[in-house]
Amino acid sequence: MDRLVAAIDIGGTSIKSALVAEDLHVVHTLRTPTRRVGGAVDVAQIVELIDELRGRAGEAPVVGVGVAAPGIIDERLGIARAAVNLGWRDLPLRDRLTEAAGIPVALGHDVRTGGLAEFTVGAATGVRNAMFMPIGTGIAAAVLVDGHRLDADGYAGEIGHIVVDPGGQVCGCGTLGCLETVASAAFIARNYSERSGKDVDRAADVAAAVVAGEPDAVAVWARAVDGLAAALTTAITLLAPEVIAIGGGLSESGDTLMKPLRAALEGRLAFQRVPRLVRARLGDNAGCIGAGILAWRAAA
Amino acid sequence: MDRLVAAIDIGGTSIKSALVAEDLHVVHTLRTPTRRVGGAVDVAQIVELIDELRGRAGEAPVVGVGVAAPGIIDERLGIARAAVNLGWRDLPLRDRLTEAAGIPVALGHDVRTGGLAEFTVGAATGVRNAMFMPIGTGIAAAVLVDGHRLDADGYAGEIGHIVVDPGGQVCGCGTLGCLETVASAAFIARNYSERSGKDVDRAADVAAAVVAGEPDAVAVWARAVDGLAAALTTAITLLAPEVIAIGGGLSESGDTLMKPLRAALEGRLAFQRVPRLVRARLGDNAGCIGAGILAWRAAA
Repeated sequence: MDRLVAAIDIGGTSIKSALVAEDLHVVHTLRTPTRRVGGAVDVAQIVELIDELRGRAGEAPVVGVGVAAPGIIDERLGIARAAVNLGWRDLPLRDRLTEAAGIPVALGHDVRTGGLAEFTVGAATGVRNAMFMPIGTGIAAAVLVDGHRLDADGYAGEIGHIVVDPGGQVCGCGTLGCLETVASAAFIARNYSERSGKDVDRAADVAAAVVAGEPDAVAVWARAVDGLAAALTTAITLLAPEVIAIGGGLSESGDTLMKPLRAALEGRLAFQRVPRLVRARLGDNAGCIGAGILAWRAAA
Repeated sequence: MDRLVAAIDIGGTSIKSALVAEDLHVVHTLRTPTRRVGGAVDVAQIVELIDELRGRAGEAPVVGVGVAAPGIIDERLGIARAAVNLGWRDLPLRDRLTEAAGIPVALGHDVRTGGLAEFTVGAATGVRNAMFMPIGTGIAAAVLVDGHRLDADGYAGEIGHIVVDPGGQVCGCGTLGCLETVASAAFIARNYSERSGKDVDRAADVAAAVVAGEPDAVAVWARAVDGLAAALTTAITLLAPEVIAIGGGLSESGDTLMKPLRAALEGRLAFQRVPRLVRARLGDNAGCIGAGILAWRAAA
């Protein structure tokens, strides 16, 4: 039987897990509600999921585990430094799981792991410098420079908290007017609701109203696009990606987002290397595929 | 005799060159006016300098050459992509010099090479994540992430052209309100001259006026410090350096710059990892020492 690895993408409300073949084909996928003990995500659940996946692998040996998680994740040391959504602080998750599972385990940050997948088999392959920026409830980036994925002890890539609107709204991060306050899916819905008086809680509904030409939606969307272009211009000035792959829920609005964003970027770039701006390709699977890549590396 | 390498730091008006020992001790230094042929810096002059240094080395063998130059310098391929100050475009300098000198040659960007020196024997040693930001006529940064110096085909680290004052003054880079327009030594002198009506062309004179409490100088300086803090906050949010070493002419103002800059940074940082902000240590020698390191690596 061909060997497999177990890939686990931990979110605050649900955990996606999969068996991943060596060609990065996803063999089997599970989705499980996240279980908590005293506010913190239960590590025992992850061990159970590894066992569950091993059971589903049948006779195929499961030779490694990759785990993706949100927060400040130190990939080199395998420690979840601060994962507020999961209730973890300085948790040596890699070592805990290695001991429990008895096979090599790698720990990665969810967005940087998704980026690894997009850089390897997704929308940003074949280049040494790239960015993957999912836009959902929050915004963060995975950055590849000179073929090296930036980690910085887990702190790299917090593009969602670059200030684009000085003196603007306060964000959970403690910064006024950071990118998330104008362009995260959550803030787009909130900003539109406040401006229009309509109670909307999905950015997709705002995108639909933009297509319909609704003026409040158009204004909120334009502000989001301008903020995204400002933050990306800054990242391009420092990091010069050749390709930027936009993912997350907001990217599902397709050209409603991508066309004005490309135009806004073109208007801002001067001397910089101009990147290709594309939609990410792996959608919701990016985290698991990336965790699978980490698992295969750990197993090697 | 102990072996040596030749290190050459090319500027638009003068070239600094040196013999560098394996312990990175600078044995001998020359400064030569930059020679041009038809507007472009004459490559033959660099070959002559290598010969000159070899002569001065006496019986010590010169086993490699490191060259630092400004502009878009692709270190991996050894090509000066666009060095406006030197009149070079897509010049394969490394290969040209290797052929002429008959020993291994490495090409580096002046600021990133200076950063290599500061990260190795200067003010930012012993960490895997750091920045070196010289502030002179222009502003750029060398960035170390996970122990890897960012190059991005020569485009990385253009922090001087991050927008910090939207709608502000136009810069040579084509951007409105980038960091250089408020905080480069050249713009600080110009902004003060315009505001005060006094004709000043050195930022050091503005720094002296700040110490004397001159209100126009204080205002121009405060704007520079605020712009530097904004740009550094952005870089910290993306790259999380543990140490930031400030160099260049402006850093010679010492605490006049460093104290308010530390305070402004502290005021802006929220969730980010807080870096140590220090003055660079190697001054004008950083480029040559860094070029020496590159030369030793090429010779290895």
